[in-house]
Amino acid sequence: MHSPATSAIWLDCTKQTNKQKLNKKYTNKTLPLSGMKKPYKEIIDLSWGDLQRAGVKPLSFVRQVLAACVYPKLLKSHAEGSEAAEGIFVSSGSYTATAGIPEIVHRVAEFITRQDGGIPSHPENIYISAGSQRNIVTILMNRKASPRTGILTPVPCYNIATLSMMAQGATVVPYYLNQEHSWELQIEELHRALESAQRVCNPVALYVINPGNPTGHVQSRKSMQEVIHFVSERSLFLLADEIDVYQDCFNGEKTEFVLMEMGPPLSDTVELASFHSASKGFMGECGLRDGYVELVNLDHTVMKYIYVLFSKDSSAPVLGQFALDLMANPPQPGDPSYPLYNVVRTDIDITTLVLADNAKRAVEVVNNMLGFCCQPVEGGAFAFPQLHLPPKAIEKEMGMKPDTYYCTRLYEESGVLVRPGSEYGQKEGTYHIRFCIATSADIMEELLKRLSIFHTQFMEDFS
Amino acid sequence: MHSPATSAIWLDCTKQTNKQKLNKKYTNKTLPLSGMKKPYKEIIDLSWGDLQRAGVKPLSFVRQVLAACVYPKLLKSHAEGSEAAEGIFVSSGSYTATAGIPEIVHRVAEFITRQDGGIPSHPENIYISAGSQRNIVTILMNRKASPRTGILTPVPCYNIATLSMMAQGATVVPYYLNQEHSWELQIEELHRALESAQRVCNPVALYVINPGNPTGHVQSRKSMQEVIHFVSERSLFLLADEIDVYQDCFNGEKTEFVLMEMGPPLSDTVELASFHSASKGFMGECGLRDGYVELVNLDHTVMKYIYVLFSKDSSAPVLGQFALDLMANPPQPGDPSYPLYNVVRTDIDITTLVLADNAKRAVEVVNNMLGFCCQPVEGGAFAFPQLHLPPKAIEKEMGMKPDTYYCTRLYEESGVLVRPGSEYGQKEGTYHIRFCIATSADIMEELLKRLSIFHTQFMEDFS
Repeated sequence: MHSPATSAIWLDCTKQTNKQKLNKKYTNKTLPLSGMKKPYKEIIDLSWGDLQRAGVKPLSFVRQVLAACVYPKLLKSHAEGSEAAEGIFVSSGSYTATAGIPEIVHRVAEFITRQDGGIPSHPENIYISAGSQRNIVTILMNRKASPRTGILTPVPCYNIATLSMMAQGATVVPYYLNQEHSWELQIEELHRALESAQRVCNPVALYVINPGNPTGHVQSRKSMQEVIHFVSERSLFLLADEIDVYQDCFNGEKTEFVLMEMGPPLSDTVELASFHSASKGFMGECGLRDGYVELVNLDHTVMKYIYVLFSKDSSAPVLGQFALDLMANPPQPGDPSYPLYNVVRTDIDITTLVLADNAKRAVEVVNNMLGFCCQPVEGGAFAFPQLHLPPKAIEKEMGMKPDTYYCTRLYEESGVLVRPGSEYGQKEGTYHIRFCIATSADIMEELLKRLSIFHTQFMEDFS
Repeated sequence: MHSPATSAIWLDCTKQTNKQKLNKKYTNKTLPLSGMKKPYKEIIDLSWGDLQRAGVKPLSFVRQVLAACVYPKLLKSHAEGSEAAEGIFVSSGSYTATAGIPEIVHRVAEFITRQDGGIPSHPENIYISAGSQRNIVTILMNRKASPRTGILTPVPCYNIATLSMMAQGATVVPYYLNQEHSWELQIEELHRALESAQRVCNPVALYVINPGNPTGHVQSRKSMQEVIHFVSERSLFLLADEIDVYQDCFNGEKTEFVLMEMGPPLSDTVELASFHSASKGFMGECGLRDGYVELVNLDHTVMKYIYVLFSKDSSAPVLGQFALDLMANPPQPGDPSYPLYNVVRTDIDITTLVLADNAKRAVEVVNNMLGFCCQPVEGGAFAFPQLHLPPKAIEKEMGMKPDTYYCTRLYEESGVLVRPGSEYGQKEGTYHIRFCIATSADIMEELLKRLSIFHTQFMEDFS
């Protein structure tokens, strides 16, 4: 009864004394302990890509509007947010249209259009959903075909994506990101991966994540252009997971923008599914479970099938749709709720700066530790430093992978929850850890302090 | 960009003048029209199993607590529901554990135990999810096997269920419910269906819906016992969709209860997945998108796989989990929020009576119309009367199925949205309509009035 993000550690480490205790505490960013002598008072859990769990406060404006949507009467005596709530809807108790509430889908399309510098996004290509990815994977599956449907997938890659593909029966075809070049996606490696796939499955799609999870790499425009040429030449469907925590913070282009910029025939022909989410946007509302997918250049018949596919889920959670609407359509100067929104807007700007600082600071501190090496974190929510473990730590019989062992001991001895690289895939013989940098400066500092003390001791133990 | 529940009508009827207008209006139970001369002022949409869309008000207590969970600060000045909110949780912005928030899962297990007269339900067998069914279907799929995975499925059956199975690549093996006996599930028909399946696929599961959707039939204990014997003898996995709108209203047993009552070896061996939802419970909160599945007698290894399968969705929407908690764990006498809850409890009781009346009244009125025949509605949210269409109406070339044509004209001429039986499956040469009875007495009466006037005219037109 524990979270996916901690499952591997639990599975690997069944004798943890406070496992059950921790399982019960799932919502706090730091978890108080009692009755056990430990060198720390609270657990720091930066194992998830979950902003609010990592200590980022929900935006009061967003919550006020959502509360007003849930129970409009309550807000009659409070002016706060009620006008914005009326601007969206107050009927949150019903199923909505399959692709999402039409007005919201429209506003999301307008939002994308603005983001992409005026290149039009079409509402009919957008589906709001609690689980877009799985549906898309289903589209790709051609069960009658033999050999099986293959999807080129990066290594490392966050495990929910690969799990989802495999659960649908797809064959994951790994392509390795180049760690030495900041985890860059290199086109020669795509060629190699595709070549290797031909023998075992029918590769139909290429999956990219930008910014990288867990790598933190932001793909360059040149690299994206190469990828677009590659999928076009090889007739692959491009699946682009484009979820950035703070869009204003890191520099990155969206695939659709780059594709459109390249003009015909590419912009008219390359099939693209681009995934976004309210969880990882500036609101960090992971609990609402809504995101959207934009589908570009898909055949009319396929689009009809996609409609049917999404229909079977009835519709996405309504409050998450409202949150997406607030993200896509925030109050403008002159709107009654603008001053209230503007306050949280300032909070967002501050947090954005904190995150950029955290990313820099984490890389700097980790690179100063002996046996650690971290590529720059340019985007996303994670740092993914490589661990150069001493041979004794690798050879030791501990019934689990060396980096899982490292994370388990880090948790036991320092109360810090991070995740082992082995969960994301890594080159044979390399080891990593992943931790979330989307937290407060204080918590980031405390994590780095504890990690540093533990790491020095660990390296000594196995020297 | 329209709803799954109205898609078939849209697909069949592309020339509707107010189609676009209606698409934009999705939240109202009655939809105002303007600028068109129609013999009605408002549209009545009883095509969905969506209580709030059908005019049932959300429960104020539930909404107050949810609002408090979304934005706790707001409730500080309002005592209403805040204590109940504190009793659950206020951190709604994070992912939760895979199976749901552990405390809520526990309370759901206690709730099921109470419902089942003390037969214990185990939290580790319960998964809260926005889409349990699809996951379970995935479990059933054995892609390496040939012929394909088959699931015995009732006819008629609501289309989301069959869509979901087919989208996962399963073969739907139809078994026909016996309309002449109130849509009873008859064991001989299961034998026939299983026999027919052996030639085309590998049947691994039997799917039952109780109360029936669209039929409104409540399965008898004897019939459930027969089904349990059948699945046991044929080594089938039993999938039981057990969603009742008003549990206090209609008499029905849960499959797990009947199974446990039958004792060993059946109670220890029959594999069962039992599905429930917050959408169709007395709260009617369809927009929150949460339900749960209880898994009984599954192998330990399979349960591990199921955990992984659910993990790929991260977790269920948090507010829906809170709503499930309120359903499972309402305030008790003596609790500060009990008086407030008690008020809505009275509302529920009144609504329950209204629904029972609606069910009776709808059947009575429809049975008095020439060319209509309706079996008793014993549970669920729908009536599913048979239409005895005149031969001329069947033979007419209208580019759509006769019952779809009937529903389309009913909508055009009377502003009443119901659904054609052809969407749910029906015996060759029979025609039906489905409409929701979970609405106010006034709306029910208005629907029956308009249906009656339209039907008389329609029968005359084709006599």
